[in-house]
Amino acid sequence: MGKDINCDMGESFGRYKLGLDEEVIKLISSANVGCGFHGGDPHVMRQTVDMAKQHGVAVGAHPGLPDLLGFGRREMKVSPEEVKDYFIYQIGALKAFVEVAGMKLQHVKMHGALIAMALANEELALAMCEAVRDISPDLIWVTFSGIRTVEIARSIGLKVIQEFYADRAYHADKTLVSRKLPGAVLKDPEQISARIKQLIDTGTVTTLDGQTLELKYDSICVHGDTPGALDIIRTIRGIMAEHRIAIKPMAELI
Amino acid sequence: MGKDINCDMGESFGRYKLGLDEEVIKLISSANVGCGFHGGDPHVMRQTVDMAKQHGVAVGAHPGLPDLLGFGRREMKVSPEEVKDYFIYQIGALKAFVEVAGMKLQHVKMHGALIAMALANEELALAMCEAVRDISPDLIWVTFSGIRTVEIARSIGLKVIQEFYADRAYHADKTLVSRKLPGAVLKDPEQISARIKQLIDTGTVTTLDGQTLELKYDSICVHGDTPGALDIIRTIRGIMAEHRIAIKPMAELI
Amino acid sequence: MGKDINCDMGESFGRYKLGLDEEVIKLISSANVGCGFHGGDPHVMRQTVDMAKQHGVAVGAHPGLPDLLGFGRREMKVSPEEVKDYFIYQIGALKAFVEVAGMKLQHVKMHGALIAMALANEELALAMCEAVRDISPDLIWVTFSGIRTVEIARSIGLKVIQEFYADRAYHADKTLVSRKLPGAVLKDPEQISARIKQLIDTGTVTTLDGQTLELKYDSICVHGDTPGALDIIRTIRGIMAEHRIAIKPMAELI
Amino acid sequence: MGKDINCDMGESFGRYKLGLDEEVIKLISSANVGCGFHGGDPHVMRQTVDMAKQHGVAVGAHPGLPDLLGFGRREMKVSPEEVKDYFIYQIGALKAFVEVAGMKLQHVKMHGALIAMALANEELALAMCEAVRDISPDLIWVTFSGIRTVEIARSIGLKVIQEFYADRAYHADKTLVSRKLPGAVLKDPEQISARIKQLIDTGTVTTLDGQTLELKYDSICVHGDTPGALDIIRTIRGIMAEHRIAIKPMAELI
Repeated sequence: MGKDINCDMGESFGRYKLGLDEEVIKLISSANVGCGFHGGDPHVMRQTVDMAKQHGVAVGAHPGLPDLLGFGRREMKVSPEEVKDYFIYQIGALKAFVEVAGMKLQHVKMHGALIAMALANEELALAMCEAVRDISPDLIWVTFSGIRTVEIARSIGLKVIQEFYADRAYHADKTLVSRKLPGAVLKDPEQISARIKQLIDTGTVTTLDGQTLELKYDSICVHGDTPGALDIIRTIRGIMAEHRIAIKPMAELI
Repeated sequence: MGKDINCDMGESFGRYKLGLDEEVIKLISSANVGCGFHGGDPHVMRQTVDMAKQHGVAVGAHPGLPDLLGFGRREMKVSPEEVKDYFIYQIGALKAFVEVAGMKLQHVKMHGALIAMALANEELALAMCEAVRDISPDLIWVTFSGIRTVEIARSIGLKVIQEFYADRAYHADKTLVSRKLPGAVLKDPEQISARIKQLIDTGTVTTLDGQTLELKYDSICVHGDTPGALDIIRTIRGIMAEHRIAIKPMAELI
Repeated sequence: MGKDINCDMGESFGRYKLGLDEEVIKLISSANVGCGFHGGDPHVMRQTVDMAKQHGVAVGAHPGLPDLLGFGRREMKVSPEEVKDYFIYQIGALKAFVEVAGMKLQHVKMHGALIAMALANEELALAMCEAVRDISPDLIWVTFSGIRTVEIARSIGLKVIQEFYADRAYHADKTLVSRKLPGAVLKDPEQISARIKQLIDTGTVTTLDGQTLELKYDSICVHGDTPGALDIIRTIRGIMAEHRIAIKPMAELI
Repeated sequence: MGKDINCDMGESFGRYKLGLDEEVIKLISSANVGCGFHGGDPHVMRQTVDMAKQHGVAVGAHPGLPDLLGFGRREMKVSPEEVKDYFIYQIGALKAFVEVAGMKLQHVKMHGALIAMALANEELALAMCEAVRDISPDLIWVTFSGIRTVEIARSIGLKVIQEFYADRAYHADKTLVSRKLPGAVLKDPEQISARIKQLIDTGTVTTLDGQTLELKYDSICVHGDTPGALDIIRTIRGIMAEHRIAIKPMAELI
């Protein structure tokens, strides 16, 4: 038995550095790599892919909205056709770097505001999934556990990996609490540790308002741009080691 | 025996339309498609690829410098590594659209200021060629006849198609006269017609200063953004028909 | 008595040309000049301002969302503070060109999706108006007749010019019919002519669904990027000449 | 008697943070604020201006090339007219924020590759100076001591402040050693301290190759994006306090 740990990476841009990619890459099994629209640039993409290869980490695309200024976190009224084209462009660009490095692109994961947009508008969600399938039906669709986009992706033949967000609070409908609200982002390693243990032992998470939620998951999503990020990831790895859960790229879990 | 006719296409951007792509596509055999850095956007790329497929036109990538404001026509001091990464990114993005359409990417052709930069700096030229080969050694490197980049591309194993510019004046060293100089761009269909006939009959072109230059070529490059463009291309097709030269995508000429 | 004719201008970008600015500028009294976010660039801005000066046309800023790819026509979830900063930036940039040309910036008019966003969200509308007032309380706020943004602008001390859209269909709440709906954009000079006459004679416009709407206006907004644009503007000027209405920049009408 | 300390600031962009602006601002007298082309965005500009106001620091514009990806550090073949328009645009945008904050824009200082371009091409240098003068002849042109751009600025009537780079090695022609060469950037506070003392005591600096160079200066340029930056600036302030040299914005030194 095994689980994957995924993290957003490669979101630096030119002179601007984001996250602790060089450290985080050693601790995860799947990297979601920025593709240049919300973050990342061609140089950063190549470096990130090379780094992933060196550490045996599988690479996925992390496409975003064309809004570098807003880091892809502001919803935009784009059409399904537009978002599909943005996905093909970004995934294609990253796929080239991955293949030039002698690897295979493993998965695709939406970035930022696209997640809320996909939850609110099934046509947009479908357009993104279709872009992934049209590029390659072998690509894995990664999204958080139990939500509607899981079914949409499956309905067109995509393999899906469901993920748990280690450091984000949940609503009862299995969506994440908005970053703008208090309590949305967890920073205390002990609290995160307790959540992970509960998840492994009981398959449940406690929501922000105290409800108990069953979650299926094969990957745990962590973030690398907060001060305590490395400690949090090491804590998660420790718990998984105690439970004899191997950490493996998601492609090996399907 | 046959020759290819290639033309830059898909350089519109968002609300901004450039060229007569819908008409030109019917008259050529290979399209050099903008990849979003100097011109083109994901939506335009998909539409252009679909249009090419519909008309049996082969598709190549036309990567440029990251300078939409200057349409990729202003030299920038980029490093070989940077330009290599820009090529992988852009070619990868277009390749995805081409493959989603069920086609195969045929060739790569430098845009704008990259040409002069490649002529002046062999390291840059090599970096671009390596990007193409790393993505796929089946991709054809297209460049104008008899210049140094032909040899550089061949030296790393790329197949090369040499091209003749129907509407641009030549220097004796086989480079093109800068657009900024008088007489650089030919617009008179009769003059262009006479040049094409001379090229087919004698394998030579007359330079701006009256010298006779031998040129090897398998493709004729035309431009679609000038008023008389369609007439010029039709004239060229007429001459080729008279000489019983079939018009074929460059991949069929290698 | 007089009226103003305003038109969006200076929305070309680099190699991309939009509209018939060189012709339209001769026929209007106020130009709304793009400021580089949705369209326009520094070079285009200077040229447009110089052209306006040469033809005695007053200049206003036409700020948009930071979305060149979508021409500022796609709503984005920006905060009031963000939109205020975008306005100050863009208006400031254009103001510099206007003052370098020895003129005075006359007005500000929202572009594209900002209009719907301002109608739906009073905080956003207020933020835009505040940006204008903070730069100079002498700047005129231009917006279409009878809507909420008129009052918001006045509430913080801005002078307001209300405009009538010559070529756009109206809803009964005085908003414009979306470009995506049939009948939204009028192209028939006779139909436009009849509307203008009705407006001048009775102060009313007939909505898309046949209702009669009273409209106050001091400026007529025309568009320069449609094939028949020049004829339409000439028609409007003809009607105004017949009615002995002088065409004057809006600053002279307050 | 007094001297100014100037530092580049406001070069963060969206989610990307650069430098220790909040700390540095307390230690300097003039801030060179990014204007959105190479770094900085409208939000960052407003925040930086507000911070400068709060700490009594004078504000200048720090315009760069339109190359966010290269942070304005890559030379581009732009025309004098283009660079002039880029300056008017960027200076105008920042000037609006400064005036909205109730302050007056103090100076303009070239960013990145523009410096080398201005040194190599007098037409470009003149175009930049003209942009500044056309916006306001009260603006101060800041550039490093003893070079040709000092004379060019003066020749068209601009006031000039010459600056000394505390942490950069010099050539004998008074230009800076390129960042790409070893020894170009000084990081050792003791070494920087010794240089500043030598400059104050003797009016000279020792070049990378050991020559002694006389330099006139009224401002010392420091950088805020290196780890030891704050210590270096504090050291400089300490030396100036010992020598009873008041630290004042450059406008007070002319």
